[in-house]
Amino acid sequence: MTKSSDPLVIFTPSGKRGHFPIGTPVLSAARKLGVDLDSVCGGRGICSKCQVQPSYGEFAKHGVNVADYALTEWNAVEERYKSKRSMLDGRRLGCQAKIQGDVVIDVPPESQVHKQVVRKRAEARDITMNPSTKLFYVEVEEPDMHIPSGDLERLVAALRHDWELPDLEVDFSVLPILQPALRKGAWKVTCAVHLGDHTVSPRIVHVWPGYFEGSIYGMAVDLGSTTIAAHLCDLRSGEVIASNGIMNPQIRYGEDLMSRVSYSMMNEGGALEMTNSVRDGMNALFVQIASEAEIDPTMIMDAVFVCNPVMHHLFLGIDPFELGQAPFALATSDAITTRSQSLNLKIHPAARVYLLPCIAGHVGADAAAVTLSEAPDKSEDLVLLVDVGTNAEIQLGNKDKVLACSSPTGPAFEGAQISSGQRAAPGAIERAEIDPVTKEPRFRVIGSDLWSDEDGFTDSILSSGITGICGSGIIELVAEMRIAGIVDGPGLIGSPEQTGTTRCFLDGRTHSYLVYDGTADGGPKITVTNRDIREIQMAKAALYSGARLLMDKFEVDTVDRIVLAGAFGAHISPKHAMVLGMIPDCPLEKVTSAGNAAGTGARIALLNTEARAEIEETVRKIHKIETAIEPRFQEHFVNASAIPNSVEKFPILETVVTLPDLNFNTNGDTEGGGRRRRRRG
Amino acid sequence: MTKSSDPLVIFTPSGKRGHFPIGTPVLSAARKLGVDLDSVCGGRGICSKCQVQPSYGEFAKHGVNVADYALTEWNAVEERYKSKRSMLDGRRLGCQAKIQGDVVIDVPPESQVHKQVVRKRAEARDITMNPSTKLFYVEVEEPDMHIPSGDLERLVAALRHDWELPDLEVDFSVLPILQPALRKGAWKVTCAVHLGDHTVSPRIVHVWPGYFEGSIYGMAVDLGSTTIAAHLCDLRSGEVIASNGIMNPQIRYGEDLMSRVSYSMMNEGGALEMTNSVRDGMNALFVQIASEAEIDPTMIMDAVFVCNPVMHHLFLGIDPFELGQAPFALATSDAITTRSQSLNLKIHPAARVYLLPCIAGHVGADAAAVTLSEAPDKSEDLVLLVDVGTNAEIQLGNKDKVLACSSPTGPAFEGAQISSGQRAAPGAIERAEIDPVTKEPRFRVIGSDLWSDEDGFTDSILSSGITGICGSGIIELVAEMRIAGIVDGPGLIGSPEQTGTTRCFLDGRTHSYLVYDGTADGGPKITVTNRDIREIQMAKAALYSGARLLMDKFEVDTVDRIVLAGAFGAHISPKHAMVLGMIPDCPLEKVTSAGNAAGTGARIALLNTEARAEIEETVRKIHKIETAIEPRFQEHFVNASAIPNSVEKFPILETVVTLPDLNFNTNGDTEGGGRRRRRRG
Repeated sequence: MTKSSDPLVIFTPSGKRGHFPIGTPVLSAARKLGVDLDSVCGGRGICSKCQVQPSYGEFAKHGVNVADYALTEWNAVEERYKSKRSMLDGRRLGCQAKIQGDVVIDVPPESQVHKQVVRKRAEARDITMNPSTKLFYVEVEEPDMHIPSGDLERLVAALRHDWELPDLEVDFSVLPILQPALRKGAWKVTCAVHLGDHTVSPRIVHVWPGYFEGSIYGMAVDLGSTTIAAHLCDLRSGEVIASNGIMNPQIRYGEDLMSRVSYSMMNEGGALEMTNSVRDGMNALFVQIASEAEIDPTMIMDAVFVCNPVMHHLFLGIDPFELGQAPFALATSDAITTRSQSLNLKIHPAARVYLLPCIAGHVGADAAAVTLSEAPDKSEDLVLLVDVGTNAEIQLGNKDKVLACSSPTGPAFEGAQISSGQRAAPGAIERAEIDPVTKEPRFRVIGSDLWSDEDGFTDSILSSGITGICGSGIIELVAEMRIAGIVDGPGLIGSPEQTGTTRCFLDGRTHSYLVYDGTADGGPKITVTNRDIREIQMAKAALYSGARLLMDKFEVDTVDRIVLAGAFGAHISPKHAMVLGMIPDCPLEKVTSAGNAAGTGARIALLNTEARAEIEETVRKIHKIETAIEPRFQEHFVNASAIPNSVEKFPILETVVTLPDLNFNTNGDTEGGGRRRRRRG
Repeated sequence: MTKSSDPLVIFTPSGKRGHFPIGTPVLSAARKLGVDLDSVCGGRGICSKCQVQPSYGEFAKHGVNVADYALTEWNAVEERYKSKRSMLDGRRLGCQAKIQGDVVIDVPPESQVHKQVVRKRAEARDITMNPSTKLFYVEVEEPDMHIPSGDLERLVAALRHDWELPDLEVDFSVLPILQPALRKGAWKVTCAVHLGDHTVSPRIVHVWPGYFEGSIYGMAVDLGSTTIAAHLCDLRSGEVIASNGIMNPQIRYGEDLMSRVSYSMMNEGGALEMTNSVRDGMNALFVQIASEAEIDPTMIMDAVFVCNPVMHHLFLGIDPFELGQAPFALATSDAITTRSQSLNLKIHPAARVYLLPCIAGHVGADAAAVTLSEAPDKSEDLVLLVDVGTNAEIQLGNKDKVLACSSPTGPAFEGAQISSGQRAAPGAIERAEIDPVTKEPRFRVIGSDLWSDEDGFTDSILSSGITGICGSGIIELVAEMRIAGIVDGPGLIGSPEQTGTTRCFLDGRTHSYLVYDGTADGGPKITVTNRDIREIQMAKAALYSGARLLMDKFEVDTVDRIVLAGAFGAHISPKHAMVLGMIPDCPLEKVTSAGNAAGTGARIALLNTEARAEIEETVRKIHKIETAIEPRFQEHFVNASAIPNSVEKFPILETVVTLPDLNFNTNGDTEGGGRRRRRRG
């Protein structure tokens, strides 16, 4: 059809090129070449999504801008869009500008359908926009008494003809609005279409009269046992429009998952009660975020949920009973695409929502989301991926193989079951250092940027005062106590005599360490007790043992890098984690935090449906290890309770004196510690 | 695999045969040959559905019953079933009896999956059982911590393996009951599976622990403007278990369809109100029928609905506004498969229900159901199919081509807008004869088997007395009045002088005919007024003109046979219909009644899913004629108002004297009649 004597058109950045007859619209040329140039209206000069930037370049002749003669003249449609909306100088509408001569045409990022959403971390892959639900503008044939087809059937035919969509299903909620929309729009409508996946067929979700100017939205939700965090994303640009979080209202049925499982076992209808509670909370959060973003909640046309298996089941309305006992059988493990109404979500009634697959009975859709975000299965080097929470989900792998397990760390890492422990909230000690010589502590509390020994600290802390120690604070304190020689390897706090500081004091049969005494001002006395040390030892031993078990299965003794995920992971100091022996030895610069990787995974799945198919396939390939039935796990656990203090590995601690190998275990108080050997090399 | 020296097994009635190694279970042999032998449990000796009857026959040797040695001996499983349930003597279980020698095995009708449901009328095809939803018994693998798949995923795998079902979807309502069912049934469950169609994927609808002994049910519903009639069918046997009907609760928004369309136009939310009203009525009817059948409504796992386009839209929740004006655009015309919950039906929450396609804006899913039942598209001879109601749906065709139209007959045929008219109910005159000599009437009323001049008639009529004239009654009366010379061709009732009877009396400017005077006993005076004649003339002209228009389009002057459908059609006397000129001339014995063909069509679609695909295809091929825009229709209408009295065609009326060509139109009262010419030819 095209001849080499026809004008040559080159698109950037794709580099795709071809010859096209004079008069070919730029949009048509782009489509023929498979160039990623957006259009909602199908080239009718309505949507202005196909803006392109004709450029100078190799064709520039005699100093004249080729764009001036290589394309047809600026026309009235373009003038209207320029005056109505922001259209940069030099931009043209791809559907209006027609080729007249050789030209280089740049497709700016915002005109690409598959825009890139850039992620902040250097090592993270960008997200390519390819959402589940897209907008399509069509002109529908008017009804004809001689060929009495339904309005819907003619709409479906138009979508098939203009957009090459398959014969679409229609959501039941569209039926009542279809005829008024077609007539109000004079047989022109914009459809939101869910494009389907391997479990559901493509379907019309909504219809607007005429060309719909607005955008549609999706929610990426990290449904945790403690908190529900959600990001509202624009499904066209990929931008996060608003974010917020609330406490999971199920907290009132038990702080940890097992107490919720118990609640459902002990109370008739308890599971249903918890299901309703989390769905109500979800709806409240959605309304709040939509209100912040100033959008109607019915404009939310997709949502992706990631959660641990118990929350997964409770959210779906399944009693989590079986997850509380071996063999920890999931009711369903595969990814789920379902209608928002199945979950009583108050977003668009026809919206379909997606839950990532669960990896195993203890390794949920949240772990799958971490996998999607951090992609251990695409890593060249061997990466250990740890999502720390009440349970730690641990993955170890590279592009050849990924192993996964869950380890019951308990709530100590979240500040629970610690004598002065509390949630991460203003007033909580979140960072700490102990002078190895004076054994005096300094710390920072949430809400202030100053250390406790800096000028103005007292004024800087909020009215809450200093209230307790949160998860990252207790980890740093215990690690610092070990570095400073206040705690020995097996985990005993020394006496004032042994440690040379009166901050150590007899507290029952063991000693405690005084971090802060606010009693003079009516505040709390914040200490680290020997029982606190034990709790941290148990938790870190569980975490370490899980990682170590996967390393055994992988037949390696070291890993190339470690990624800490989870909101808590973001606050853990890698140095202190390694001092404690939470994680295997690894060069410190190879330990990074991925922040809320589960939430990021949810956002990826929201913005790119191909990523859903990808993670489903990946999850099928992950080798699942059940710690509960692995004898090696118990063995590692017993060996991992000691606190190693690999202090010499941290050259940044130059002032630290080398300490004797402390062992305070003189009074026979073992608390189980006596059975523990020091962790092996 | 099999050798010709292996025993020969012949199945009857299929005649399928093959050689099978000694020890092959009869069920396995049947499956290999594609013999239609039922089994729910998959040959595990649980369901007893695979009963067969080994027979004597060509293999009988030396007077010994071959079955005695051609199959393995009667075993304990069979003994248990025989003692527990009815199992006829001589029957064997196909999964237990194994082949030992040559044998002829009969599969009795009740052991066939695709049983025939016999229809009463001689010309009607039987229904082959092939329901949308079937039961499957499976044994599911137990969970394994080393391969942590979900219970659902293992159930789906078992159904795929044992029953060669594709990877099934699961309805959301199954998720909460799945784990308890699997454990209660010791990893054996029975699943109800909707097998899908071209719009929806196969899906698990329900799960019972262990082997489910019971049956599942479906509803075939004829949703009329006036009444809703439903048949509860056993989805395994095809039997109608219970039937009932109620008035359509929408009656309170208007007797006829157009007044309901007006109601929705005049009242904000009026359509929604009517939608809720018809759905509520539907649920009440379902509950009532289920209660009569002593089943739980949630055991209803399929339903099929047929209805005219306005009821179709109102039932689906679509405002029927557009159906009230040209071009009579349907919101959707194709068949619909949807979840019962979309229609707020209180049957099984996961049940999928089906609406037949609409043929055109005035020719609904009810007409499609008539097509399915009467199959004009399969007829060798040319059949005119008339479904008489407020609108008459008319089809004309044979296996080459089918034409369809709708004609606005109005409610006169249903007794409405007739001075003494009433619904068909006890007390209504339903049949009538007038002595052509004495002009005296005799009649029968609903509720009595006697004619009014027979002994005991007065005692036989119910307490209601004689209350009015129903649709079939007015047709017979007007036709008899014409035959008896009381009414002339243009439709005027003669004076007492002209007719020679004082039953004719001046009534305003025209005459009326006295049918029955009950005033002496406080009853009504029942007459046929000249306005009544006009109403019937309008209605019959509309009906005739529609039929005639289709004949023009088909380029024929006669039809081979006429089928009258509809509850009303069942009561129309073909003779009187032809006297009136309601239907084209046709040999009287070629005019038959199909009873409630729309309801039968619904039942066929309920029991056989292939029939759904078939009618969808047929409807696509039907040529639709819109009477409103056909000038020929108006022309026929004008010409069709006269009452022909083709009395000489009815040899059974031997006593009828030949009448002069009456024309009573002497007083200039035209009521439009003056413009009408007598019907041609």
